[in-house]
Amino acid sequence: MSPELPAHNIQPADSIPYESWFTYPVRVHPHHTDYAGIVWHGTYLAWLEEARVEGLRSLGIHFEDLVSMGCDIPVVELSIRYQRSLTLGKQAVVQSRILPHEKVRIVWEQIVQSPDASLTYITAQVVNVPLDREKGTILRKLPPELKYALSRVSGPSGMGER
Amino acid sequence: MSPELPAHNIQPADSIPYESWFTYPVRVHPHHTDYAGIVWHGTYLAWLEEARVEGLRSLGIHFEDLVSMGCDIPVVELSIRYQRSLTLGKQAVVQSRILPHEKVRIVWEQIVQSPDASLTYITAQVVNVPLDREKGTILRKLPPELKYALSRVSGPSGMGER
Amino acid sequence: MSPELPAHNIQPADSIPYESWFTYPVRVHPHHTDYAGIVWHGTYLAWLEEARVEGLRSLGIHFEDLVSMGCDIPVVELSIRYQRSLTLGKQAVVQSRILPHEKVRIVWEQIVQSPDASLTYITAQVVNVPLDREKGTILRKLPPELKYALSRVSGPSGMGER
Amino acid sequence: MSPELPAHNIQPADSIPYESWFTYPVRVHPHHTDYAGIVWHGTYLAWLEEARVEGLRSLGIHFEDLVSMGCDIPVVELSIRYQRSLTLGKQAVVQSRILPHEKVRIVWEQIVQSPDASLTYITAQVVNVPLDREKGTILRKLPPELKYALSRVSGPSGMGER
Repeated sequence: MSPELPAHNIQPADSIPYESWFTYPVRVHPHHTDYAGIVWHGTYLAWLEEARVEGLRSLGIHFEDLVSMGCDIPVVELSIRYQRSLTLGKQAVVQSRILPHEKVRIVWEQIVQSPDASLTYITAQVVNVPLDREKGTILRKLPPELKYALSRVSGPSGMGER
Repeated sequence: MSPELPAHNIQPADSIPYESWFTYPVRVHPHHTDYAGIVWHGTYLAWLEEARVEGLRSLGIHFEDLVSMGCDIPVVELSIRYQRSLTLGKQAVVQSRILPHEKVRIVWEQIVQSPDASLTYITAQVVNVPLDREKGTILRKLPPELKYALSRVSGPSGMGER
Repeated sequence: MSPELPAHNIQPADSIPYESWFTYPVRVHPHHTDYAGIVWHGTYLAWLEEARVEGLRSLGIHFEDLVSMGCDIPVVELSIRYQRSLTLGKQAVVQSRILPHEKVRIVWEQIVQSPDASLTYITAQVVNVPLDREKGTILRKLPPELKYALSRVSGPSGMGER
Repeated sequence: MSPELPAHNIQPADSIPYESWFTYPVRVHPHHTDYAGIVWHGTYLAWLEEARVEGLRSLGIHFEDLVSMGCDIPVVELSIRYQRSLTLGKQAVVQSRILPHEKVRIVWEQIVQSPDASLTYITAQVVNVPLDREKGTILRKLPPELKYALSRVSGPSGMGER
């Protein structure tokens, strides 16, 4: 849709090995589309969230358990570049990885692309922070289970509040 | 869209005076539509719910206060007939009224129509029951505030668990 | 949530063999839930639609191709009974089958239940009619491909506009 | 929710007079919320879009007419900072304005805040580009009506493809 727009906001962290990407498949159903016959721009947020939740699950972190324990990890920042539209019935994959980061933040790079990776539909960066659900305050440390799980995937430079 | 289909499921209770209808305006925005250029059939559930919540508010029942008090009123039954489609940018109104009912149920008749009432888009019947949020069980009586508020609008035959 | 409510609206057509059910798995993600910590009642419409589209796909009918050919099959009637709520992270399956019907209608029975079928969350009946997208009128016959595909699954008494 | 996070992504263009802001009211309904009892982070995209569409309408640009004319203005970039959560029943306003920009882009600054402006829930920047719907290509010029309308609100430095 906008091939000429330079991707200045989102810089892939190429030092992270490709195998760290978690792949989540999606298909465009009628409720995902809008009057233009393509995926409505807000639909992607649901897909990105599903991919993050399932990505964490693949690391042994069950999001519903975190929530039960009193920890939430709300989105505090989000940026998306829409590059190409996706039409009814099409299949795509959400590729997600966690970037190394020095603070108590989980920084995701996410890409929605065609299953063969030849077409990119959107690129996104999403930041979560851990929150004490009862107090409504940001946790100073990630819960240990979450920190450990993330340390396994966020590259040689580590993750969390070192 | 289907003028020939007989409206067998939903029988308007014509004995209730027209002035009991609560009117809630809506407009079709891009996120309400689907690939067919019309309102996606599931979008109406959001509008119907907004209209019920604002209808209760017009009676002095603030839904968020009910919830804080530990009472929820989930939907337990829903039936909709889609009669005519609604396109991008169009305005419509949701007309809602509460039908008299003998049990601890709130039975809504709702119609989405053109602002001048000349066109009917959908007709719906929706049933809520009062629920104790903590126990997860259906309340045997409506909360007094809710019962009183509903008694003012649900016709001569009364409302609630008489 | 309301085990005592009799299932008067939706009568399973038990003469159809169980193997005609199409199974579509879902999982509850954050965007499916509402303030009550359970699946929002409107979310089910998206799941039911996904299950119908994928059910047709399993019969060789690609919904996006129907649409490209100028045929749509909008929902004209919908009725749902909500029996039990579903919480964050839970897995469920949508079971769908097509009931025999004498007119040019596709009548679906759909059930959202636990993967082991021990718990029923909602039961639904949904009716589609075939529509000429350009003219906006209901087709007098189902497209042949669709009629043939449906005839294979809608039981001994057949399907379509006999 | 995250007061300590510096607002580095989104710089208000303070040279634009305050009166250029378009105000669009919203209220949190059940379908806007998630399991955490607050507005789901993707819900804001619907509100931001509604506010942009109604903001254009206030300038005489009816979005549905643009679409009928063959012009769409899809979102190509979006960035949001979530600063504070919003709970069931609360009212808020979406404040929107168009920033001056040298290319054929419409750059929006949008803020969701409390009606009295004392609390900020999210800040957003959204970029639209004009698209030829039939060809799927970006228009080299804004449609004249749109360019004229925007020139009235985007400040002394003008707007559009000067």
